[in-house]
Amino acid sequence: MSNITIIGLGLIGTSIGLALKKAKQPNLKITGHDREPTSSRTAQKMNAIDSLEWNIGKSVREADMVIIATPVLAIKEVMEYIAPQLPEECVVTDTGSTKTRILQWAKEILPGHVSFVGGHPLAGKEESGPTAADAGLFEGADYCVIPAPNAAPWATQAVVSIVDLIGAKPFFIEAGEHDSFAAAVSHLPMAISAALVASTTKSPSWHEMAKMATTGYRDISRLASGDPEMNRDICVTNASELAPWVDRLITELLELRRCLHESDEKGVAQFFAHVYEEREKWMAGVTQAPTGAAAVALPGAAEQMSSLLLGDVLARKSREMMSRYETEESGKKKKRWLR
Amino acid sequence: MSNITIIGLGLIGTSIGLALKKAKQPNLKITGHDREPTSSRTAQKMNAIDSLEWNIGKSVREADMVIIATPVLAIKEVMEYIAPQLPEECVVTDTGSTKTRILQWAKEILPGHVSFVGGHPLAGKEESGPTAADAGLFEGADYCVIPAPNAAPWATQAVVSIVDLIGAKPFFIEAGEHDSFAAAVSHLPMAISAALVASTTKSPSWHEMAKMATTGYRDISRLASGDPEMNRDICVTNASELAPWVDRLITELLELRRCLHESDEKGVAQFFAHVYEEREKWMAGVTQAPTGAAAVALPGAAEQMSSLLLGDVLARKSREMMSRYETEESGKKKKRWLR
Repeated sequence: MSNITIIGLGLIGTSIGLALKKAKQPNLKITGHDREPTSSRTAQKMNAIDSLEWNIGKSVREADMVIIATPVLAIKEVMEYIAPQLPEECVVTDTGSTKTRILQWAKEILPGHVSFVGGHPLAGKEESGPTAADAGLFEGADYCVIPAPNAAPWATQAVVSIVDLIGAKPFFIEAGEHDSFAAAVSHLPMAISAALVASTTKSPSWHEMAKMATTGYRDISRLASGDPEMNRDICVTNASELAPWVDRLITELLELRRCLHESDEKGVAQFFAHVYEEREKWMAGVTQAPTGAAAVALPGAAEQMSSLLLGDVLARKSREMMSRYETEESGKKKKRWLR
Repeated sequence: MSNITIIGLGLIGTSIGLALKKAKQPNLKITGHDREPTSSRTAQKMNAIDSLEWNIGKSVREADMVIIATPVLAIKEVMEYIAPQLPEECVVTDTGSTKTRILQWAKEILPGHVSFVGGHPLAGKEESGPTAADAGLFEGADYCVIPAPNAAPWATQAVVSIVDLIGAKPFFIEAGEHDSFAAAVSHLPMAISAALVASTTKSPSWHEMAKMATTGYRDISRLASGDPEMNRDICVTNASELAPWVDRLITELLELRRCLHESDEKGVAQFFAHVYEEREKWMAGVTQAPTGAAAVALPGAAEQMSSLLLGDVLARKSREMMSRYETEESGKKKKRWLR
């Protein structure tokens, strides 16, 4: 018999419960706890948990594993509250989007007889709360696993088993690297999505221009609809990693701004040609290590080939565009559109 | 018999052809022209046009209406080339994303005996070229219609008929207003989507962090995959409207940056609570005129009611989050997570 306690029955916690139930593992008993009675009852009605425990302390007393699936800042408070109640050899894991700070809290707060193994499923959606939960949310997704230095190997294995059970793929990564990468590819997109909504909706003409906002605005603003508490906690606990990425983004915007003010058509062209190539390469999965001294992992022959072919197609498009500027600069100005 | 000539057989031009064909209007003959032989032949194979004309001048000589569906800067060159060939009382329209500059070109370049009626379908996708074309692309979409001051009323009506035929809804708007609004809700999202890709892919660790980029990065970076020539032309021809919006965005990012550096948890919370509310209101279609002196159009009673109800739900979520700060400030610091 394994007892798993899920604390925090929002989108992620409830989805983990549903996915574990779907895996039909015998001898698995799931206890759930959430501070919100509505979320608790919804998760229970959805059969994401076997039983509900209103008292957070009691909810972990018999647990073999505790999964903390609350917003990041709340994880610290949950740890403080459950620490004296955790049984011997209990495994504690979490689902927070930042890891360095959480591992530090685990070290400071949790008793030495439990193993902490940090986790972060790379899956989600903008809707929050248990009603948005989905048993298939983690299907095929990477799931970052970051054991505390003193975690027992069997505890890490236990978390990996849960990751497997819910259909995700374990992805081992160092906490600092996780937070730096997540800042760039996850928290920065969230910040600029929010900044777009902030800058447009503050305009006195917003109610008029909103009529003209379509799929582009909808998609780029999507992450602004993420749970505001989750987003706040991510920024607060990963501020030192996120800030330099915000700076890099501002640098790019300042360069675009310069191009616009100086009517630098070539500069604007280069800006869009570069990102077009890079995004297409990423979408095709052929992002490569840089060549030269910094390169470490070389792709296999097949991967190199497909990358070369795709690279050709993409490079042709931007070369065609950029070549017109070279022609113009060499003094032979010719019609751009007409041959 | 009506002769329509589509110049530029990319995503939009080919989709217009397909949509017109689908409408099965009798006596409509569609001639197509594109500088690219591949695009031309693809559009022809897809039956988006009745005939292909390799010579751009010849392609308009018998036309009742010419639809210019090229990137914005190319529209000027197309106008210069077709101007001497346009028959009496021909209607010329376009599909460009910026309008002030295009109307100015029409005034300078097109002969007085033709009517120019600017157009801009608020529909698209990130894929470009005729292979991405779709007869249903404009179904239900707004289609901005901006007649030149000297356009004949029947010419405007002719363009409106075409808009109707392809399933879109005509949306009359003044050119300057169009460009200002489009800058905020369409060109700014495009610029920041591109800036995200620029800032992340330039990192020496990009090939490693790319593994951790999932749906959030994919969606926010989507517009960076738009045709780079189209994007360049939009920025170049709408620079004066886009630049102030880039400034507003940078202002928001600088404020977030300040919050991160100063560990201003309350500031971060306010930032995300505000955008969460605003985006949800926009998605629900209840964006309202501001109250006070600036308010002009008042919503109907039913609309007001639904807005009030939704507003309640949204406001509750952010009030709950923000109230914790007020409680803390009043000296009664309490646990955030646990009751």
